[in-house]
Amino acid sequence: MSAPAQKGTVYLVGAGPGDPDLLTLRAARLLATADVVLHDDLVPDAVVALCNPHALVTSVGKRCGRPRITQVGIHDLMIDSARRNLSVVRLKSGDPMVFGRAAEELAALRAAGVPAEVVPGISAVFAAGAALQLPLTDRRAASKLILITGKHAEDKNRGDVQPVWQGTLPADATLAIYMPGRDLLAVSEDLRAAGVPADMPCVAISCAATPRQQVSASTLSDFAKIDPGPAPLLVLVGRAMQPMLLSADSTAQPHAQQVVKAALACL
Amino acid sequence: MSAPAQKGTVYLVGAGPGDPDLLTLRAARLLATADVVLHDDLVPDAVVALCNPHALVTSVGKRCGRPRITQVGIHDLMIDSARRNLSVVRLKSGDPMVFGRAAEELAALRAAGVPAEVVPGISAVFAAGAALQLPLTDRRAASKLILITGKHAEDKNRGDVQPVWQGTLPADATLAIYMPGRDLLAVSEDLRAAGVPADMPCVAISCAATPRQQVSASTLSDFAKIDPGPAPLLVLVGRAMQPMLLSADSTAQPHAQQVVKAALACL
Repeated sequence: MSAPAQKGTVYLVGAGPGDPDLLTLRAARLLATADVVLHDDLVPDAVVALCNPHALVTSVGKRCGRPRITQVGIHDLMIDSARRNLSVVRLKSGDPMVFGRAAEELAALRAAGVPAEVVPGISAVFAAGAALQLPLTDRRAASKLILITGKHAEDKNRGDVQPVWQGTLPADATLAIYMPGRDLLAVSEDLRAAGVPADMPCVAISCAATPRQQVSASTLSDFAKIDPGPAPLLVLVGRAMQPMLLSADSTAQPHAQQVVKAALACL
Repeated sequence: MSAPAQKGTVYLVGAGPGDPDLLTLRAARLLATADVVLHDDLVPDAVVALCNPHALVTSVGKRCGRPRITQVGIHDLMIDSARRNLSVVRLKSGDPMVFGRAAEELAALRAAGVPAEVVPGISAVFAAGAALQLPLTDRRAASKLILITGKHAEDKNRGDVQPVWQGTLPADATLAIYMPGRDLLAVSEDLRAAGVPADMPCVAISCAATPRQQVSASTLSDFAKIDPGPAPLLVLVGRAMQPMLLSADSTAQPHAQQVVKAALACL
């Protein structure tokens, strides 16, 4: 068993996709021993329940774009707690080093002279691949895995809404779009503009690796008609997703919007 | 605590990058309870040590390209064990659904009517990001994370050695090259051909998230001169890696091949 959370240290920890069983041993050990836990809104109660019962546990998430606490406020909380000789876990959904504010948080900790450790987590696309039992790469269909975010995840203040992919998307890629937003028509149009053919399989996964997981699949041409279910959403695009269309076809509904209840038992 | 390994079921389980602490809770539980464990060569002894002491543990890896057991042999072992009502863990380094033979193995299990579960693992690039304390994406420097394999990992029998990237690599990407091979000159030439500028930061990580981890960083123009250390190797390319060059520069060696001993304590 690894060392417990050290006093005066801040741990940036990946909470994984939501299923507590998909925490790493290291993450579980730190949660069980930290004095202070600062977690994102996306981290479910079942994961928060693994915290030391004596820990001060606070959600520092931003809900519907309205921050309850500013990014600088999060930095101050981490640094102040560490300086009061407490051990601090900053718990982020998925992996802490992609599509988050880890750069700013690590820079603030460094500037304050507070020691930090980063613990990786299972990112949503890997949870989705496992839940669907569908390889994300395949020697025949997909030699690349590309992780991006949807335009809606961009900082609204920047005012420069970009398409999800500029230029031509490689034909042999599996594209994973984190936080694609609710507007699947805009996503579909961006993909068409990136040269993705109309018959390309697209999959939307809502609440991956949670009991509420919901999976929908269609070709790109029908993708805008899908009701993907509630956030958090993940969209997967690529030939490696073809088996999802076949399983949807087999239910004999003529077009689009097939909701395939993924085998949750497999998690 | 999650359910133990079920008799007659095959579990495709991600072993993560090598550090046993980076196994998921689910993976550790299955390892501790499975009757049969079939693991890749890359899975270290420290992970194998977590197996049920009564389990039949077999390495089914391919060393130096010479298979000790064929892919079909692995399928037969999994299926025969499950049919003898044993619980089977097929343990793969990193995550089981990228850059492996999961597609073939799942297809064989399905064809045989053997129930399967897939458990995701920490893929090497996330272990590297955590160990280097360096975000893989950054709102200012890198909005995409692209995972590919080096040409040397291709099936030699196919005879069609491709460049690591065809076309122009997006300027705002972090590129992770799994199994880049020993020929960093070939990798460098491929990257230059993909329009990557000479001053682009490149990082080679040997044995990520193990006690032997070794990290080297340079610009692309000097990258071929690096001695990256032993396999398994991971190469990271992109502006988000710039801090690795700065830390190398600070040791005042004039060119290339900076070996930065990463803070292993941070794992």
